[in-house]
Amino acid sequence: MLSFESDYIEGAHPQILQQLLETNLEQLSGYGSDHYCESARRKIAKACECREADVQFLVGGTQTNQIVIAAMLQDYEGVVAAHTGHVSAHEAGAIEYTGHKVLELPSHDGKITADELKEYLQNFYQDENHEHMVFPGMVYISHPTEYGTLYRKEELKALSEICREYHMPLYLDGARLGYGLMSVDVDVTLADVAEYCDVFYIGGTKVGALCGEAVVFTKNNMPKHFMTMVKQHGGLMAKGRLLGIQFDTLFTDDLYFQISRHAIEMAELLKHIFREKGYSFYLESPTNQQFVILENAQMDQLKRNVAFSFWEKADAAHTVVRFATSWATKKEDIEKLKELL
Amino acid sequence: MLSFESDYIEGAHPQILQQLLETNLEQLSGYGSDHYCESARRKIAKACECREADVQFLVGGTQTNQIVIAAMLQDYEGVVAAHTGHVSAHEAGAIEYTGHKVLELPSHDGKITADELKEYLQNFYQDENHEHMVFPGMVYISHPTEYGTLYRKEELKALSEICREYHMPLYLDGARLGYGLMSVDVDVTLADVAEYCDVFYIGGTKVGALCGEAVVFTKNNMPKHFMTMVKQHGGLMAKGRLLGIQFDTLFTDDLYFQISRHAIEMAELLKHIFREKGYSFYLESPTNQQFVILENAQMDQLKRNVAFSFWEKADAAHTVVRFATSWATKKEDIEKLKELL
Amino acid sequence: MLSFESDYIEGAHPQILQQLLETNLEQLSGYGSDHYCESARRKIAKACECREADVQFLVGGTQTNQIVIAAMLQDYEGVVAAHTGHVSAHEAGAIEYTGHKVLELPSHDGKITADELKEYLQNFYQDENHEHMVFPGMVYISHPTEYGTLYRKEELKALSEICREYHMPLYLDGARLGYGLMSVDVDVTLADVAEYCDVFYIGGTKVGALCGEAVVFTKNNMPKHFMTMVKQHGGLMAKGRLLGIQFDTLFTDDLYFQISRHAIEMAELLKHIFREKGYSFYLESPTNQQFVILENAQMDQLKRNVAFSFWEKADAAHTVVRFATSWATKKEDIEKLKELL
Amino acid sequence: MLSFESDYIEGAHPQILQQLLETNLEQLSGYGSDHYCESARRKIAKACECREADVQFLVGGTQTNQIVIAAMLQDYEGVVAAHTGHVSAHEAGAIEYTGHKVLELPSHDGKITADELKEYLQNFYQDENHEHMVFPGMVYISHPTEYGTLYRKEELKALSEICREYHMPLYLDGARLGYGLMSVDVDVTLADVAEYCDVFYIGGTKVGALCGEAVVFTKNNMPKHFMTMVKQHGGLMAKGRLLGIQFDTLFTDDLYFQISRHAIEMAELLKHIFREKGYSFYLESPTNQQFVILENAQMDQLKRNVAFSFWEKADAAHTVVRFATSWATKKEDIEKLKELL
Repeated sequence: MLSFESDYIEGAHPQILQQLLETNLEQLSGYGSDHYCESARRKIAKACECREADVQFLVGGTQTNQIVIAAMLQDYEGVVAAHTGHVSAHEAGAIEYTGHKVLELPSHDGKITADELKEYLQNFYQDENHEHMVFPGMVYISHPTEYGTLYRKEELKALSEICREYHMPLYLDGARLGYGLMSVDVDVTLADVAEYCDVFYIGGTKVGALCGEAVVFTKNNMPKHFMTMVKQHGGLMAKGRLLGIQFDTLFTDDLYFQISRHAIEMAELLKHIFREKGYSFYLESPTNQQFVILENAQMDQLKRNVAFSFWEKADAAHTVVRFATSWATKKEDIEKLKELL
Repeated sequence: MLSFESDYIEGAHPQILQQLLETNLEQLSGYGSDHYCESARRKIAKACECREADVQFLVGGTQTNQIVIAAMLQDYEGVVAAHTGHVSAHEAGAIEYTGHKVLELPSHDGKITADELKEYLQNFYQDENHEHMVFPGMVYISHPTEYGTLYRKEELKALSEICREYHMPLYLDGARLGYGLMSVDVDVTLADVAEYCDVFYIGGTKVGALCGEAVVFTKNNMPKHFMTMVKQHGGLMAKGRLLGIQFDTLFTDDLYFQISRHAIEMAELLKHIFREKGYSFYLESPTNQQFVILENAQMDQLKRNVAFSFWEKADAAHTVVRFATSWATKKEDIEKLKELL
Repeated sequence: MLSFESDYIEGAHPQILQQLLETNLEQLSGYGSDHYCESARRKIAKACECREADVQFLVGGTQTNQIVIAAMLQDYEGVVAAHTGHVSAHEAGAIEYTGHKVLELPSHDGKITADELKEYLQNFYQDENHEHMVFPGMVYISHPTEYGTLYRKEELKALSEICREYHMPLYLDGARLGYGLMSVDVDVTLADVAEYCDVFYIGGTKVGALCGEAVVFTKNNMPKHFMTMVKQHGGLMAKGRLLGIQFDTLFTDDLYFQISRHAIEMAELLKHIFREKGYSFYLESPTNQQFVILENAQMDQLKRNVAFSFWEKADAAHTVVRFATSWATKKEDIEKLKELL
Repeated sequence: MLSFESDYIEGAHPQILQQLLETNLEQLSGYGSDHYCESARRKIAKACECREADVQFLVGGTQTNQIVIAAMLQDYEGVVAAHTGHVSAHEAGAIEYTGHKVLELPSHDGKITADELKEYLQNFYQDENHEHMVFPGMVYISHPTEYGTLYRKEELKALSEICREYHMPLYLDGARLGYGLMSVDVDVTLADVAEYCDVFYIGGTKVGALCGEAVVFTKNNMPKHFMTMVKQHGGLMAKGRLLGIQFDTLFTDDLYFQISRHAIEMAELLKHIFREKGYSFYLESPTNQQFVILENAQMDQLKRNVAFSFWEKADAAHTVVRFATSWATKKEDIEKLKELL
């Protein structure tokens, strides 16, 4: 059985496991205070070209979104996001659980636009009753988005400028950041992300790690007692080494970027094959998630040999499905898929 | 430098790492739905001699306490615990963050007594104003406690009976459960825990795993949509395999019990050495945490070569410190400590 | 200066104040346990033709929505509402503050449709990932809506049937319920509301009281320890008599209905005048809130002598404004307005 | 039947009702923006001799405690209070509902001591693990306390100094503040309260109003968007006039102080009678709540003709009960009680 079901179906990149093995009996202090965490922090700050970076490691993506957003918002504020944003739709209400509303903007293939953000903010402050409403306190974007799309540099800059005008942090969810940075169509670098965003995270879970996300506060703006708030949310890992060692490995010799590039190459190959065979795509994705429209009978047949994700119905006879590649995708599996199509 | 600072200073038991390596490229479904999780669930249920057991894996102890307690309490209820309980004092308010009060009872070397629990409950319901107060909705105990002490079987039974009388679940925090079950002084088995408690967790983080705790609902009483609530709290691991493989390994061929016994043997040896040298103990602990009273100057000197934890001041000239053994403690390190004393 | 700014610009109906005066020095027990509260409960249950009714008094509308919704939802659930619903937009995030998401449906002049509700629910349960999403746990409607519109009886029935099919309570926000029940265009009675809804509230603040809303649980379904949860939310009034006496007066000799009818008569008169003068309406409202489209210059001029509410921009040259009548509106004021137009 | 059951068994002081009547049909803007609220704010600030005072009106005591505490604490902080404090024990977990822990200190007849506060804070910051604990972020005291006792000026000053040293606001719950200020044994003035506390409230509900508490932020320190947070908690009253008119009346011609003095005179008389008859007191209260020890049989007999509150068991044969006077207590009722004893 082939599987392109998601980018988290394998374990970790072998170098990470190797490093866990080699350091296993070293006695280290807990809660992220060990020297591997320290080393990983330095390497990440350097890769971001950001001297003021404060880097913290968390276990998973929803947890990271929840803690970062709750820690940065005032009680009377909510977070602005595309209505397709992961925080809006697919985190079981993790943001609302912390007492904050997700203020939804329209989604354009997963992205929000600077114009619509600006218009929303202007309308909000012009409304005579806005003191009876949730104040916009932060903007959340994902890059790549849940639809595999990417912000252009000028789009990111425009969002950033509006956020600064309104004194709201811009937060970028980089669950699949590596796949965005290594896209063939990229014009946003990691340094750009660090420049335009006030906080973002570099996803590990979907890019080679067993688990773990690296949160980067870029403007010397880490909330006071952030560690205590992580503990309060149940997110503080006793053996912080597990996160430190993984990110230290990923950011040694550009491993994070290399394995991301591999996933992109596999995605491009997969895209090429589907195109060649005459399939159409739900949208143009330059990253590791590809959304293909299948005729239903064909879909059912393919399912017997290949795992992929249901995305949504296209029409009565067609379905949108997702094929994901990752750092672990084997070229031979893509070739097998070609034969099956 | 020797270290007895805690029971989570090393990585994982080598068999766990070995198993992670061997299964690494196997493609598995996410969120705890893979076959390693299934296998671990079955093995744990069997070890508990509990057919109705529902087993769920979470990442860490505070997270587990937070989610289990919030999921089982009604909005108007709080959780009863010793004032020294981990949930009362050392989780940065993780329980209160979910909107629930920790209702504190006196601590007797870390334990609560059935008599004081009963008296508290009777007083509560006799108080004419109790509808203006937080209802006791659950009882939390730790075993071993934060002081290394253990409940006797009859104590556990008595607590359990009161809880059933008042229709409150009894929840046991087993962060160090292995060290309790393998204590030389134990009369409580894993099956007893499953019988007397409505829910408990088997700690992995402090007993051989990189991370992970196995929650066991023992009475066919797992809260509806528990997985969704785990997600809502940011606690759902995408690569659930990381937890499943670890617990599957720990509950294969009694590994969990064997490595726990080793820690106990090391603790007994350490205790013997301190006794032999004329030291006194803050309390009698039958598990892997030993609380020794050191003269301050002596403590400062010892610190140069041995790491241990400050616990509390005994008097102006003496300090209580904690030495912890674990599955990873080497006998030779204890012998080195003997020489240093 | 004339004012049609809202339906809460005066104090209370004179009979209420009279009754407060007459009972003032009577010594009564607190927290809603006095005999006026009891009497008001009985009268309201009778007016609802609902034997199983449990009636509770709260201070204001947002508080009522917050407490009722939080008390009836499970942790993993959210409340479905029109995106123009008061709970969605104008309560400063009071629902999210309790940890629950507002799940928005499209608004049709303030109303949701049974078809769109059904479709949403079907899609939700068909989504393979719905366990990672917020479960719909309750449906919120307002009647009259925020736009002054009313549900037809068959619409209410259809919503009710879907809710029962999905085991979700249907909750009706009746902040202006009197004005809905006395509308010239009404076909929904108070008994219908009690039949089709699982819980609703009868608004006092906007219909003759100084403050106060009467929550009616219609199916013997008041959440356990509701009073304790009211206290927990800071909503329990020590001198519950203030609410009991007011509602007892409003539900004596049909006062609530009579004063509501007066507001409707004034609204019809006002509508007639605007029509006669050739103004157009933003939508057709059969209740006490009328949404008129004014040319901007005209609006500015009118503002000098009449207070009304800005609603939204219609186009560059026109604005939608709201005129509200109430139990206290004087016919002479409407005639003065006629002259001013 | 005589009643000394509490200080909220009657309605409002007649002058308040008179003023509600006279202003009833005046058309006023909502949410506390009317001129009666403005006038009341000015009069209260003047009575406090505090130019920087920001005054806000809320409906009840638990609501006030909940909103003020939640608005002033950071997410990682809790509020320090006596374990007998109203927020600790008798508000159904309203503070915890907002996500914050109540950090309890010992109670000395309802009061906390500066020494114990200081010791607690020093221990907290000396604890190496305090980043895993709830940070003390605010100190809550009640004056009079739940036991009717009062802080001396030097005690209040000492608490205030410690709070400033640790940058924590000192918050005083003045549910019965009038009865404290008019005590025969008082040495704390309203100006002292405003000087030493960062925020406090002047209780209306128990001192002559139908409902309402006036929160005073004394150091130009009202939290940003406080009104929005009040709304978010469901505490914003649409007809804010109800609160404004009441407090404007209470702070016109010293009415608040006069009616408080009457309650004190009645309490002194009651105390005198009990003393004369040989009864003993649970503690020495200089305010309107008197705690008398009754022999059980005697208590049962007295209950037939007089209402009072059960407080707690003294021993097998005796019970502590509370008699409360108020602005509404009649001298003749106290004389009738004398005859009954």
